[in-house]
Amino acid sequence: MRARSILLNERPQGMPTDNTFKFIEDDLPELQEEQVLLKSLYISVDPYMRGRMSEAKSYVAPYQLHEPITGGIVAEVVESRNKQLPQGAVVMGNLPWQTYSISNGNGLTQIDPNLAPLSYHLGILGMPGLTAYCGLIFIGDPKEGETVVVSGAAGAVGSVVGQIAKIKGCRVIGIAGSDNKVNYLKQDLGFDEAINYKTTGNIQEALAAACPNGVDVYFDNVGGEISDAVYSLLNKFARIAVCGQIAFYNATSRPTGPRVEPILLKTSSLMKGFIVSDYMERFGEAASGLAGWLKEGKLQYEENILEGFDQLPHAFLGLFKGENIGKQLVKVAEYSGAGR
Amino acid sequence: MRARSILLNERPQGMPTDNTFKFIEDDLPELQEEQVLLKSLYISVDPYMRGRMSEAKSYVAPYQLHEPITGGIVAEVVESRNKQLPQGAVVMGNLPWQTYSISNGNGLTQIDPNLAPLSYHLGILGMPGLTAYCGLIFIGDPKEGETVVVSGAAGAVGSVVGQIAKIKGCRVIGIAGSDNKVNYLKQDLGFDEAINYKTTGNIQEALAAACPNGVDVYFDNVGGEISDAVYSLLNKFARIAVCGQIAFYNATSRPTGPRVEPILLKTSSLMKGFIVSDYMERFGEAASGLAGWLKEGKLQYEENILEGFDQLPHAFLGLFKGENIGKQLVKVAEYSGAGR
Repeated sequence: MRARSILLNERPQGMPTDNTFKFIEDDLPELQEEQVLLKSLYISVDPYMRGRMSEAKSYVAPYQLHEPITGGIVAEVVESRNKQLPQGAVVMGNLPWQTYSISNGNGLTQIDPNLAPLSYHLGILGMPGLTAYCGLIFIGDPKEGETVVVSGAAGAVGSVVGQIAKIKGCRVIGIAGSDNKVNYLKQDLGFDEAINYKTTGNIQEALAAACPNGVDVYFDNVGGEISDAVYSLLNKFARIAVCGQIAFYNATSRPTGPRVEPILLKTSSLMKGFIVSDYMERFGEAASGLAGWLKEGKLQYEENILEGFDQLPHAFLGLFKGENIGKQLVKVAEYSGAGR
Repeated sequence: MRARSILLNERPQGMPTDNTFKFIEDDLPELQEEQVLLKSLYISVDPYMRGRMSEAKSYVAPYQLHEPITGGIVAEVVESRNKQLPQGAVVMGNLPWQTYSISNGNGLTQIDPNLAPLSYHLGILGMPGLTAYCGLIFIGDPKEGETVVVSGAAGAVGSVVGQIAKIKGCRVIGIAGSDNKVNYLKQDLGFDEAINYKTTGNIQEALAAACPNGVDVYFDNVGGEISDAVYSLLNKFARIAVCGQIAFYNATSRPTGPRVEPILLKTSSLMKGFIVSDYMERFGEAASGLAGWLKEGKLQYEENILEGFDQLPHAFLGLFKGENIGKQLVKVAEYSGAGR
């Protein structure tokens, strides 16, 4: 079987470019006992992957140079020598950016293709949804009537955070990077207010107007000056979940800015960084919460799906331009429907 | 009765000066029903008081201009029209910087003059001791074998933090501002290592050498570049108790520096600001812990006592020079011993 792959061609300095990636095509070996041949259906692109492209130690190991990039993928078993994963089964896991790949099944999760659209398992029912739930509920701990601010609000994580906060009875303010997103947050997702940080004259004044009772919970996907503006409005005992710092993922030197410690001290606030896997023991609780709300129609979910394996670098680079609404995916192949 | 008072003469810009304070002398009125006349014995000077001298909103209300400064004081009842507080009783409370003052007893705590030296109730058995206990135990949550770093380590709070961490079985590194303090921490208090940040060539290298297994808990009294050096060594799931930011108390503009959020994110670390009163409901637990260790001889305690009411401004300004070891106090008068 011929398979196309995308390798990490060089480690980017600053923003990745087309030269970061290299397409190759190769023959896959014959299947061994216990192995399955997987056809990639949907491939997820996520901001955290930028960190893995650098050599620096981070919370996940760096990608290897000249090896395929890996990430969240939904795939179909098209040939099987593994009884657990028959032909037609659909799986989700951390897999190489390849049109086809071979796996022994370790680390793969079989998913029910009748539960929801397959791509949802890379989004609201996958890592982004769990990230939103765990960070907001386990760190932010929002209480009815409190004010919750989320940055990167129209993204795969932020859009779920805001909706959960609404379900919890909070006033919810989203910060995003286009009028289109602002409308989406307010009109489609029910956010109380949303601010376009690119066009608002003064983010701090806009936030102060949107948060007349201050800020109790801040779910931060972005960092930088947007966060500085939120910090100035923190109430006593505020909670800040630091989920992403996309403002700095392409930074080549350590970012500086106003120090946050004096504010945390004055307000007795808590700030905690996290990665979703920190809460693995509570994924069951989180997943059933999300699935329940989705079933009840309380959670809206938007995807931005590009078509074709060739689109992966473009889809990835688009994450840093602040243009997309919802979860960014690439559809690589059609599901045969054999497992339905 | 004539009483001398120290008023807030003007709000300092940056470092306070002699002109911040004004001494006056006045007659006190006659005692009313329920009132007591108090003779100040020991007066505490603390870094947080700098914040109250500014007009800016903080976690405690600003001092009023041209009114006496207030703070922790141990005083003796020398005349009483209040049955709860007979003549000779010794009390502790937030009282005006006066040689004598009048109180109706509200907010005063009567202390047993036979339990410990009277001045201890402004230190290890008072707010500084409770601050050390609550911040280290309730935020830092140190576990046996972990590495704990404390800045401002020779101060009233830091010296107790490090000793509690040793009792909990941790490796303890103190950061302080003189060789004298470093010796005190290592030889008298049993710290594993201590670093003089003023003379060490490279604080980050010195810390890295002292913390071969990284840093699990950081108790921060200081902020600024010392904290930056500690952050670079944080282990996964580290905890940072932000207790003070003395580096900035006299700052006239918002301090800047490397952003900490990316580090908290990479290490899934928690940072929490606090003031001791946040934990008021757990003071009983904290006080009995401290008193028990003191009794068992597991806690050493050092005081730096200046003599004479006139010394108060000087004692206060000395807090920001990084010269003193242990709790800074001013002794104003001798206890009569009537309540013993």
